[in-house]
Amino acid sequence: MPKEVSSKLEWTINIPDGTSERIEPESGPILRVWLRLKGTIESFILKIWKFLEKAWILAVAEPKKVIHGLKVGLAISVVSIFYYTRPLYEGVGGNAMWAVMTVVVIFESTIGATLYKCINRAIGTFLAGSLGVGVHWIANHSGKHLEPIILGTSVFLLASAATFSRFIPSIKARFDYGTMIFILTFSLVSVSGYRVDKLFDLAHQRLSTIAIGAAICVIITMIFCPIWAGDELHRLICRNLEKLAHSVDECVAEYFRDDKTSTASDEDCSKKMQGYRCVLNSKATEESMANYARWEPAHGRFKFRHPWKQYLKIGASIRNCAYCIGTLDGCVNSKTQAPPNLKKHLKNICMRLSITSSNVLHELAFTLKTMKKSSKIDFSVEEMNLAVQELKNSLISLPNLDIITNPLPAEANLEPITKITIPPFMEILPLATLVSLLIENATKIEGIVNAVEELAVLGEFKPVTDKKPKCNQSTTNNQAL
Amino acid sequence: MPKEVSSKLEWTINIPDGTSERIEPESGPILRVWLRLKGTIESFILKIWKFLEKAWILAVAEPKKVIHGLKVGLAISVVSIFYYTRPLYEGVGGNAMWAVMTVVVIFESTIGATLYKCINRAIGTFLAGSLGVGVHWIANHSGKHLEPIILGTSVFLLASAATFSRFIPSIKARFDYGTMIFILTFSLVSVSGYRVDKLFDLAHQRLSTIAIGAAICVIITMIFCPIWAGDELHRLICRNLEKLAHSVDECVAEYFRDDKTSTASDEDCSKKMQGYRCVLNSKATEESMANYARWEPAHGRFKFRHPWKQYLKIGASIRNCAYCIGTLDGCVNSKTQAPPNLKKHLKNICMRLSITSSNVLHELAFTLKTMKKSSKIDFSVEEMNLAVQELKNSLISLPNLDIITNPLPAEANLEPITKITIPPFMEILPLATLVSLLIENATKIEGIVNAVEELAVLGEFKPVTDKKPKCNQSTTNNQAL
Repeated sequence: MPKEVSSKLEWTINIPDGTSERIEPESGPILRVWLRLKGTIESFILKIWKFLEKAWILAVAEPKKVIHGLKVGLAISVVSIFYYTRPLYEGVGGNAMWAVMTVVVIFESTIGATLYKCINRAIGTFLAGSLGVGVHWIANHSGKHLEPIILGTSVFLLASAATFSRFIPSIKARFDYGTMIFILTFSLVSVSGYRVDKLFDLAHQRLSTIAIGAAICVIITMIFCPIWAGDELHRLICRNLEKLAHSVDECVAEYFRDDKTSTASDEDCSKKMQGYRCVLNSKATEESMANYARWEPAHGRFKFRHPWKQYLKIGASIRNCAYCIGTLDGCVNSKTQAPPNLKKHLKNICMRLSITSSNVLHELAFTLKTMKKSSKIDFSVEEMNLAVQELKNSLISLPNLDIITNPLPAEANLEPITKITIPPFMEILPLATLVSLLIENATKIEGIVNAVEELAVLGEFKPVTDKKPKCNQSTTNNQAL
Repeated sequence: MPKEVSSKLEWTINIPDGTSERIEPESGPILRVWLRLKGTIESFILKIWKFLEKAWILAVAEPKKVIHGLKVGLAISVVSIFYYTRPLYEGVGGNAMWAVMTVVVIFESTIGATLYKCINRAIGTFLAGSLGVGVHWIANHSGKHLEPIILGTSVFLLASAATFSRFIPSIKARFDYGTMIFILTFSLVSVSGYRVDKLFDLAHQRLSTIAIGAAICVIITMIFCPIWAGDELHRLICRNLEKLAHSVDECVAEYFRDDKTSTASDEDCSKKMQGYRCVLNSKATEESMANYARWEPAHGRFKFRHPWKQYLKIGASIRNCAYCIGTLDGCVNSKTQAPPNLKKHLKNICMRLSITSSNVLHELAFTLKTMKKSSKIDFSVEEMNLAVQELKNSLISLPNLDIITNPLPAEANLEPITKITIPPFMEILPLATLVSLLIENATKIEGIVNAVEELAVLGEFKPVTDKKPKCNQSTTNNQAL
């Protein structure tokens, strides 16, 4: 009997997948364990497979991120090999460590972020190092009993104050990392300073290794496919403007579309319509990019002190507009339908307003893209305002118009007129909302125009003068439309 | 002459502030330099003063942040003194360094964030350490020429892959810090492993110091004024619900207010009205808090696997509602005024809808606060829906009503009736928008109700049963209102 069981055991574990179900009734618990194990392993492999698939999709969609990964790998390899081959740094690798650590911690995907961390690390280390040596000197000269008290108190007070200062917005935006490095270095100097007499020597070695690490980072990030935070911010704002333009267009077109059967291009449309959601979610990215862009030197079309803060203002006004479009989107999907004759009456003018509005947005995106004062923007804004005025006029004349266009029955008979010609308030509600949101939207677009014009002044955009860019302008515009 | 000049020089520099202008014509350039220097110093002192003032305001407003600073100071002092007094760790302080570094880098303001970093650091260090030792062993056994190539390639590949993986959302949310530590440790082991034979010894020492640092962090952060990320998230969502309720109330009340003269309480009102802006900006905070809360053990009323993700859903639906209120706010400030009689007619029912809407929001906030299924929520929602229906009804009957309530002139005379009774479309636009936004808002509030109810199911909220909490409920509610 025992032999049979053991042979069964072996056989159960070794069977291929397809035949496993045949012996179920004979050796239940073991098979169940095996099946469960197999299930776990299979789901684990499936999970990993899905993860890799996701990673692959991300890599194909944004090759920049792969390139960043390769750049970090390269930088770490370079710094490792640099120390690996130098006989100067015999020993525990205590100094090489600082260079490697610097590279790993400092290397960020944009140049601005890398520079921000470099400069913060340098300033923080230097300040904390000098202060630490000073405090250490004072403690050293005040007797054996006082020394630990002075060191402990200074560490406590400085670490507390520095940690608190990281919550202050102006410090958080510019020197958050530097403050952390300050705390770290000061604590390290205080603790290690007690044993090491060659504090200056140590500081010199450490600073030089950090400098080497930082230099390797900066060189590699600037040479191979540089990604500038300012450039990214600039393009993000342009993209958001265009997304908003598409959203306005699609929302209004969707509302006035006659046949609401879904086609293949429908998904594309609704995707465009949802563009405003991206705009709503881009605040954090914009802020961090603007923070990093300040540290970047002049690059491409941007000067050193390009007004990056103004981009945040533009972003805020774009988002203001996007809220409006979000509500518009909700109102398009409302179930209540306006009376067809009223809808027909307003269709053309509403469509014109939406097209002129999106035209202004496209024009603004184009102004930003070329960084040249557009000659057409004033004209576009005027066209938009004209459309708003026309819409208002046609609204003012609306009730009278409806009554007049309907053939009047016998004068004495009042009731049929009021019932036929004046749509109940409830039915016109979504249309009224759409109209008022479109008008509101036009006001908010003017806010964006003002913000962009302010940027044009601050960033010293040049006006378009020669013929060529104008020609280019119209083709780009057509493409965008 | 030279003596006179020198005496003048001395005199110029030593004069008190008030009399400095008297000798301007005699020693121009030096005085100018002095004045400029004085100006610079004064503006510098002013800047520092302003900065300190800002810090003070922040500290008074949020004492939690000061406490966090003190906790960090305490933790660093403890770890410093721990190593400072132990004769075991004689030498460069290379090991003490790791403990100090761990404390500085890991200590975050919430317990969830600290645990997240602790666990990530431990996993990252352990994985990278084992992998590094493995690769190092392979490289060691493949000859002197192959060794640097194997080490360099492995560092390059692993660092690249790990850096890229930090962009994948699921890794970024949970293991971003761990991945960085993985890269760091693996690189360090590869570089330093070449020289150190006692790799295991080193690893053991390093891990134990990291463990001591992490333990000190966790103990201090949990003992003194613990700040739980989950708790913060929970309270943030409650606060946002209440802010939204106030915004709805104030917006509608502002629109229907008769005398628009500004009073002392006006600023307070507009502040309450702008509450929705805070809601719009809290997305990033919510997400990071939810991420950190997952790492926290059971605390207070929350179990270990409290459905923190559901809070994000609630947050999203709250924000959805806030967009609507944002547009409402814009429409309240519109210049076009609806005809007074129409406004009067709709005032009561609009006010009732806004009050019932904000009641639902207050009720939801209360449900969250007490973590008990409210018995009143269904009733409140029904009341709100009733108000919506009533508003719709009063809208449907509106045009007829207006015509009927106006005294009819001679039946044959059509024109005066239409002109007086039917307000032009343009004038009713803002009111129509307000009404439709209020209805839209009610729909969105139902979305919040559903999300909160889902949370109540997932989080196993208990129903209110005994009398006492009910009594408490009404008082809290009154206070909130």
